[in-house]
Amino acid sequence: MERRSFLSHAGAAGIGTALLAAPAVSRAQPAVRWRCQSGVPRTLDILFDTNEEIARRVSEATGGRFNITIAPAGEIVPTAQAADAVIAGTIQSALVSTFWYTGKDPVWAFGTTIPFGMNVRQHNAWWKDGGGERMFNDWLQQRGARFVLAGHTGVQMAGWFRRELRSPADVNGLRIRVSGLAGNVWLGAGAVPQQIAAGDIFPALERGTIDAAEWIGPHDDEKLGFQRVARFYYYPGFAEGTGSPGWLINNRAWDALPAEYRSIFNAAAGEAITTTMARYDARNEPALRRLIAGGTQLREFPRPIMESFWDRAQAMYAEIGRTNAEFKRFHDHYTSFQRDAVGWSRIQENSFDDMIAHLLRRRPAAGAAQRRPG
Amino acid sequence: MERRSFLSHAGAAGIGTALLAAPAVSRAQPAVRWRCQSGVPRTLDILFDTNEEIARRVSEATGGRFNITIAPAGEIVPTAQAADAVIAGTIQSALVSTFWYTGKDPVWAFGTTIPFGMNVRQHNAWWKDGGGERMFNDWLQQRGARFVLAGHTGVQMAGWFRRELRSPADVNGLRIRVSGLAGNVWLGAGAVPQQIAAGDIFPALERGTIDAAEWIGPHDDEKLGFQRVARFYYYPGFAEGTGSPGWLINNRAWDALPAEYRSIFNAAAGEAITTTMARYDARNEPALRRLIAGGTQLREFPRPIMESFWDRAQAMYAEIGRTNAEFKRFHDHYTSFQRDAVGWSRIQENSFDDMIAHLLRRRPAAGAAQRRPG
Repeated sequence: MERRSFLSHAGAAGIGTALLAAPAVSRAQPAVRWRCQSGVPRTLDILFDTNEEIARRVSEATGGRFNITIAPAGEIVPTAQAADAVIAGTIQSALVSTFWYTGKDPVWAFGTTIPFGMNVRQHNAWWKDGGGERMFNDWLQQRGARFVLAGHTGVQMAGWFRRELRSPADVNGLRIRVSGLAGNVWLGAGAVPQQIAAGDIFPALERGTIDAAEWIGPHDDEKLGFQRVARFYYYPGFAEGTGSPGWLINNRAWDALPAEYRSIFNAAAGEAITTTMARYDARNEPALRRLIAGGTQLREFPRPIMESFWDRAQAMYAEIGRTNAEFKRFHDHYTSFQRDAVGWSRIQENSFDDMIAHLLRRRPAAGAAQRRPG
Repeated sequence: MERRSFLSHAGAAGIGTALLAAPAVSRAQPAVRWRCQSGVPRTLDILFDTNEEIARRVSEATGGRFNITIAPAGEIVPTAQAADAVIAGTIQSALVSTFWYTGKDPVWAFGTTIPFGMNVRQHNAWWKDGGGERMFNDWLQQRGARFVLAGHTGVQMAGWFRRELRSPADVNGLRIRVSGLAGNVWLGAGAVPQQIAAGDIFPALERGTIDAAEWIGPHDDEKLGFQRVARFYYYPGFAEGTGSPGWLINNRAWDALPAEYRSIFNAAAGEAITTTMARYDARNEPALRRLIAGGTQLREFPRPIMESFWDRAQAMYAEIGRTNAEFKRFHDHYTSFQRDAVGWSRIQENSFDDMIAHLLRRRPAAGAAQRRPG
């Protein structure tokens, strides 16, 4: 009825135009309001702001009909309960790293990453073209939600340490703030892992009730002030080849969206994958330089410690897999893809990166630019 | 008039809904049709299909009002003239690598990449957060167009060679199909660079009228059949840390779009940055394995040749910069960002990649997974 009425009114604009314009108008797309709880506070500006941009894109692209309000971490429910709140429908969505919920089931990790996992490019390839996204969402939808990847952090730093780690023995008794499956790896290596919310890490490290804390990377870590209470900054973070935040969305809320809104949301989240990573890459480097200028001691994680952690991680995966067939299915799929992807990365990307680093060291571009052509 | 009529018809749905729905309806968004000429044929499925997906997203998100038809390479104008056709307004848009147009002005290269340039992550950081996108589009808009990044290839392969290259002397007289500024580098090193369109490379290599050809990477190269006429496949491609295809768009066509359509287009193109790269990463690896199984000999470019090419590239940049101040401004900006970005990549990504590769070699995950926890 409405459609016919509108078409007759629009007739003056010419048949071609009216017919083309008709679909958007005649469907009378509904006004939709969502709440999304971010897993991070406003101070973590890259993650928080990029998600506000997704909400802005969605609003712009729907002529203001689909509105999403982003609440900072903990404002609606504690972050640890955000997944349950989405599944129950208390909130339509939450920005999460899925590995925060490995306590519910370790399969949750695969939405983000696992210790000794893939880097950004490899993860995207697995997720978008290697079957990862479909596999994870098939699993998750049975639990009442879906996950839409919406960003990356890149390889995270291994964390802030009040004392140096020189050998596997130095890990014994180390009280470290760490989350997800990596906690088990530290535990197996003799450390005392602790789960501490973002706001409480700094005072714990300052008072010395913990000896170390992993967080994200220079840009975010500097804001929390870790450099004032711990001297040694280790890399690379074996546990996070990338943090891959995304939107956890209630199934019923998603299914109720018009196809047009779902398409717009997916595009906006897809765009954020690149912008988040670009911002981290552009801002981590100057932040690290400031930290080092301020006295932070940068250290690479000793390989013998990484080897012992790797062994413990493999043992953990095998152990979980023995009682959790779904975990084994995911882990086999993920690591099989990873082995091939790493082989290709060595040829394509790492050989290029090594060559460029070598050439930049050998003769800086700025100096060489003064030479006459041969 | 139309607005009032529609609102009265929609009244039954309740005031709140009607008012919220009003903006999209009352603006009576126009029907827009664009033509986009792809720079690649349909056979290069990743690049071609991802662009059809952008068109599909845009159509879905605008309720079918903004329609873009993608024409294969050469269908409307030859690829070499696509930039001029966009600037003249013959077509609204074209999918291009901007370095195809360095013959017009070498500054065009910076929309995609320059020899010995940045990798994907570094390029995105420079483009999206380091000022690159704004700088390039400020320059380009004065010439009548804008460029929206919409994909990546990753580091390209250095190409197919009928004979091995062992030292800089082997480059003398080598007839190689190559495009953009890299042609000057090969020329300076004693080679005979040739610009040959995609469809003509295979026969030229088969007949032996050229000795070598660079194209993209295993997935695309295999489709063109280079493995049947050249035995040696070299990496990494010094000239393309990434091919970064994007949409070249006529200024007037862009300015005529409603803000809503521009927002949707930007989101769809932004999403394609990740999906294109993910597809290449997932499909290049098995393609390379097939090529090697079929007899292709994989070779890393000898470092002495890369060092001599690097020197020639720096001399070329200095030479261009002496008469082209804009090129110098771009090159200084780009390489200054690159130096910092490479430093950060070494710490963050390369150390992680090296560690993972080391651990996978040391004890494959599948084997270790059989072990009992310690």
